[in-house]
Amino acid sequence: MTRQGTRPRMIGPMDSYSDRLQAVIAQRGALCVGLDPHPALLAAWELPDSVAGVERLVRTTVEALGDQVAAFKPQAAFFEVWGSAGLQVLETVIGEAQAAGALVIVDAKRGDIGSTMTAYARAYLGDGPLAGDAVTLSPYLGFGSLEPAFAAAEAHGRGVYVLTRTSNPEGGTVQLATDPSGQTVAQTMIDQARQRNLMTGLDAIGLVIGGTHESLGVDLTGFTGSVLIPGIGAQGGTMAGARQLMTGASVTALPTVSRSVLAAGPSPARLRATALDLLSQ
Amino acid sequence: MTRQGTRPRMIGPMDSYSDRLQAVIAQRGALCVGLDPHPALLAAWELPDSVAGVERLVRTTVEALGDQVAAFKPQAAFFEVWGSAGLQVLETVIGEAQAAGALVIVDAKRGDIGSTMTAYARAYLGDGPLAGDAVTLSPYLGFGSLEPAFAAAEAHGRGVYVLTRTSNPEGGTVQLATDPSGQTVAQTMIDQARQRNLMTGLDAIGLVIGGTHESLGVDLTGFTGSVLIPGIGAQGGTMAGARQLMTGASVTALPTVSRSVLAAGPSPARLRATALDLLSQ
Repeated sequence: MTRQGTRPRMIGPMDSYSDRLQAVIAQRGALCVGLDPHPALLAAWELPDSVAGVERLVRTTVEALGDQVAAFKPQAAFFEVWGSAGLQVLETVIGEAQAAGALVIVDAKRGDIGSTMTAYARAYLGDGPLAGDAVTLSPYLGFGSLEPAFAAAEAHGRGVYVLTRTSNPEGGTVQLATDPSGQTVAQTMIDQARQRNLMTGLDAIGLVIGGTHESLGVDLTGFTGSVLIPGIGAQGGTMAGARQLMTGASVTALPTVSRSVLAAGPSPARLRATALDLLSQ
Repeated sequence: MTRQGTRPRMIGPMDSYSDRLQAVIAQRGALCVGLDPHPALLAAWELPDSVAGVERLVRTTVEALGDQVAAFKPQAAFFEVWGSAGLQVLETVIGEAQAAGALVIVDAKRGDIGSTMTAYARAYLGDGPLAGDAVTLSPYLGFGSLEPAFAAAEAHGRGVYVLTRTSNPEGGTVQLATDPSGQTVAQTMIDQARQRNLMTGLDAIGLVIGGTHESLGVDLTGFTGSVLIPGIGAQGGTMAGARQLMTGASVTALPTVSRSVLAAGPSPARLRATALDLLSQ
């Protein structure tokens, strides 16, 4: 996004996800805070391992950081543990984060085919109460199977992040397997996302690439979308390392920190100080 | 499962998923009915495209078929469209199906790493209100990343179905990619599931293999778990074809039919007749 003059163009909800993401990063810096209310964190906050505990943790975090960070990434699993009651908390927190001016990337890693994939697209990128600004997708059924989500994201100014190359040790057994030409599965995801973004000009298709690799092992040349980089902090990646990983690529990098920010709570002041510290690294 | 004498051993909730599945198949035949309340089906039933419509469709189906079929496979996406209200319907329908003696395979295709995967295991294979008898899993992050779900299934007499070789055309780009020894991703899933089942003796790890392939292209030799075979009916597979596909393998095949059963509704008698007809094929 280029701007002319001193007054930035107003970015509204009908702009593309890419424009909205770049605008909020320009204002607040590139940091996404993961909302992972897992039992050990609840205990550290002296909260019960219950849906009430989850609600308290995530709403406190969003209240403290909602006007400070570019995006939140609620991890669906920790809400699904509590069934419909947990999903009600997720719906609330999506609305509160957006009201505070942050984007919401629902980390649901959904992936299916046909009318089922269309239903996931409707749920997370359409008119469903769980729809945020973007959703993560898992492509075991092939990049093309996710098409209904791509179309929904592009139509509604939202984004998707396709799992591409993750930081866990077992990830390579799938992601580094090769097609007959010798190209890896991960590289095929990048190439197909790049082509789709070039075709639409919307950059609605982002990638998830783990932040703990020493080198990427994939080629991001020409990819113009956004890259979500989890694994910063508790999992061993650093903000500087995440930027380094993307050197030379013209992507919008969005480092994501979960545990090491949340561990600073429940004090709102300490949550804010920890996020500020990460933004200065 | 082998039985001696004429009185079958009573199978209770503390038995392994594999034992419970084989017992219900012995009584009712091998048929799993998918619960996919998508908009076109709701319209065909003259129901509104709303959470009330979804509830009516799935509860009517479970009431009609709950004492007749081995298992139901609710498709999570169609409930998630309606957020927490939809998940409340899913919770209800899981309980009603189990109360009628059918097993419930929640088709959620979840997959993640570490404490997030542990949370999904708790949600769908532990004490969460969304836990059925089994859940489908998506292994883009590697078979090993799903370990918390395997452990939970084995500990609680439940099962998992790992996406292996699907019937959609794009599936091969990931599932038929090869490791340096030339083995496909799909075959690696089978081999790792086989090894795990042999190690535990519980056969808690099943596979999802699409029913529309002419030949499998993978080797199920020695795999002793259960194989969920979607794609029967509307997607072009047949019950006979599904059995043929498994010829020579010592698996517990569970053909799954969704649209072509549900399209027979809302008449309970027609739903029952359609399921009976499939069981006789």
